[in-house]
Amino acid sequence: MQSHYPRLLLDETVCRRNIRFMAEKATANQVLFRPHFKTHQSGVIGQWFRDEGVSTITVSSVKMAAYFAAEGWKDIFIAFPASLPETKTIDHLAGHIHLDLSVESVSTALYLNDHLTNPVGIYIKVDTGYHRTGIDPADTREIARILNAVGRAQQLTLKGFYTHSGHTYEAKTTKRIEQIHEQSVQSLSKLRNLFRKDHPGIKLSIGDTPSCSWIKDFGEIDEIRPGNFVFYDLMQEQLGICSIQDIAVALECPVVSKNSERNELVIHGGAVHLSKEFLLDETGIIFGRVVPLTGQKWGKPMENTFLKSLSQEHGIIKADPKHYNAIRVGDTVGILPVHSCLTANLADHYLTTRGEIIPKTRS
Amino acid sequence: MQSHYPRLLLDETVCRRNIRFMAEKATANQVLFRPHFKTHQSGVIGQWFRDEGVSTITVSSVKMAAYFAAEGWKDIFIAFPASLPETKTIDHLAGHIHLDLSVESVSTALYLNDHLTNPVGIYIKVDTGYHRTGIDPADTREIARILNAVGRAQQLTLKGFYTHSGHTYEAKTTKRIEQIHEQSVQSLSKLRNLFRKDHPGIKLSIGDTPSCSWIKDFGEIDEIRPGNFVFYDLMQEQLGICSIQDIAVALECPVVSKNSERNELVIHGGAVHLSKEFLLDETGIIFGRVVPLTGQKWGKPMENTFLKSLSQEHGIIKADPKHYNAIRVGDTVGILPVHSCLTANLADHYLTTRGEIIPKTRS
Repeated sequence: MQSHYPRLLLDETVCRRNIRFMAEKATANQVLFRPHFKTHQSGVIGQWFRDEGVSTITVSSVKMAAYFAAEGWKDIFIAFPASLPETKTIDHLAGHIHLDLSVESVSTALYLNDHLTNPVGIYIKVDTGYHRTGIDPADTREIARILNAVGRAQQLTLKGFYTHSGHTYEAKTTKRIEQIHEQSVQSLSKLRNLFRKDHPGIKLSIGDTPSCSWIKDFGEIDEIRPGNFVFYDLMQEQLGICSIQDIAVALECPVVSKNSERNELVIHGGAVHLSKEFLLDETGIIFGRVVPLTGQKWGKPMENTFLKSLSQEHGIIKADPKHYNAIRVGDTVGILPVHSCLTANLADHYLTTRGEIIPKTRS
Repeated sequence: MQSHYPRLLLDETVCRRNIRFMAEKATANQVLFRPHFKTHQSGVIGQWFRDEGVSTITVSSVKMAAYFAAEGWKDIFIAFPASLPETKTIDHLAGHIHLDLSVESVSTALYLNDHLTNPVGIYIKVDTGYHRTGIDPADTREIARILNAVGRAQQLTLKGFYTHSGHTYEAKTTKRIEQIHEQSVQSLSKLRNLFRKDHPGIKLSIGDTPSCSWIKDFGEIDEIRPGNFVFYDLMQEQLGICSIQDIAVALECPVVSKNSERNELVIHGGAVHLSKEFLLDETGIIFGRVVPLTGQKWGKPMENTFLKSLSQEHGIIKADPKHYNAIRVGDTVGILPVHSCLTANLADHYLTTRGEIIPKTRS
């Protein structure tokens, strides 16, 4: 496989350290570690999780479940409301591995039971405040109806309640992350207590990287499903969840042009490589931070130097005069991504800091 | 190849009509048609251009040039400032096909001449107002230096001046597109006249879809390089450059959840399928319009119904109550993209309205 520019560099040491950190935290908390593989989408990186004892994973689409099943994973939760037009593929997968699906209505539960010939596990999605998907935890009548439908369905086995507190990504302080986490846990625990008698063995599962990284004691939670932590990114760093040294990927981009009047460097590295995700900091909107490269290894972000805009293939770096003058056309620089999940999805492989090419799939 | 959901539907009839429209316009204007293939990135769709007599193309990266060279294209312009770390690959390609590169400094011209063993054509990028890349047309001293460097270089042959007036995308009226186009043409023509004596045969090349679609008479321009027009999208429709019926792609997304309190439909279709590109209209920020599907064919956009937000794999549709009630979980709907270049890049193939799978590459 040839590595064209721009190319996504991966620091295996940092990545494995991030994986170990979360695996050890799960063990210490006696929760099941079911990492979300949508961030890295790579069979090889999956193996680094196996090296830490992981055997249960989370994905976000049937396509991704099929990819990781082919990579030998036997226990996969598709943490996305079940996609009924793909029932045949789901059924085929469920014939080969243990598959868990997400359900948030009686009709979906009944449809799955009617159309699947193989058994699946069922998680019920609860909306603990992010308001994207899931059932309002106050709507206990509806939750009871779903629990009963799943309980009666021959092909479905109840696994538990799960949530994704995606609103932690918008938290301004780690205190706020703690509050959101606390509310989510209370909300899920209350539901479990309410239904414990008729439905014993309900597991509680949470997913967001900010909570899973920051919270010390998961309390009544049984399972964690973080994904982003495998690479982290500038968004997590801004949240205070990781440090710059924990970011495991950087996009290597050729500098193709310089504009001395604007102190701007133009790089080959645009929306098709980084996505259009941005964050706001004291300098304004930024699409990435710039790091110097030595071979495939990168250093600390350059001061007063940031990716200020993106088009399809171009990126424009506003540079401090010192860095502007030191960088020449034909050099490459690294870009630390704002949102590593989207950046990693856009890459067709990783190039490690040791020069190895690591294959991956894409959504 | 299996077609997982969401999947990008392509209306071949509309797409071929868009291609024919631009090919005929180029012929009528006696300009060379050198379409930009970054939008579709598909060998099969490239063939539809061949069917209209096209033999010269534009791409935006060395990787894309390599893909289309392998698809049999013999005359390719990489309309992106030359990426010096990829000189070896460029040289290899230039040994097999006619390759044109973009240069905007003397040092890049000299570097290429020193390191290439095969001849290439050179376009000089001129910044006619978009201020992303290119030389200020007022800086005639620098342009003269580059022209002279290219003129003396053994492996380089001067092709002409080119520009991308990307600021037409921000035009609020078609009148403004005309003004921008007029300024670009004047700027390029003035340069040609200035250097005509020492550098005869300079060609003038423009690229943006708004100008190429809207302008009737290209005047002194010799070559057009539009790309987006092959599919068009909501951004072009908002500009008044195309109609909704000219949009050739729609993302087919399963409806996976409904929220009756918010009149929201959740679809499997997120930033990894559509990109995070949005536009502002009278309703606010929208990430796509929703069209009903019959098999793989789509109808007109549903009124008061639009994609209001996106996360990695989820999209949230704000729906008119009429449409909300008619659509069930398990149905699929089509999403007309805001920016088809980014949406198409994210797909690994197209599914035509006749049910054929068309392979493509990605950036």
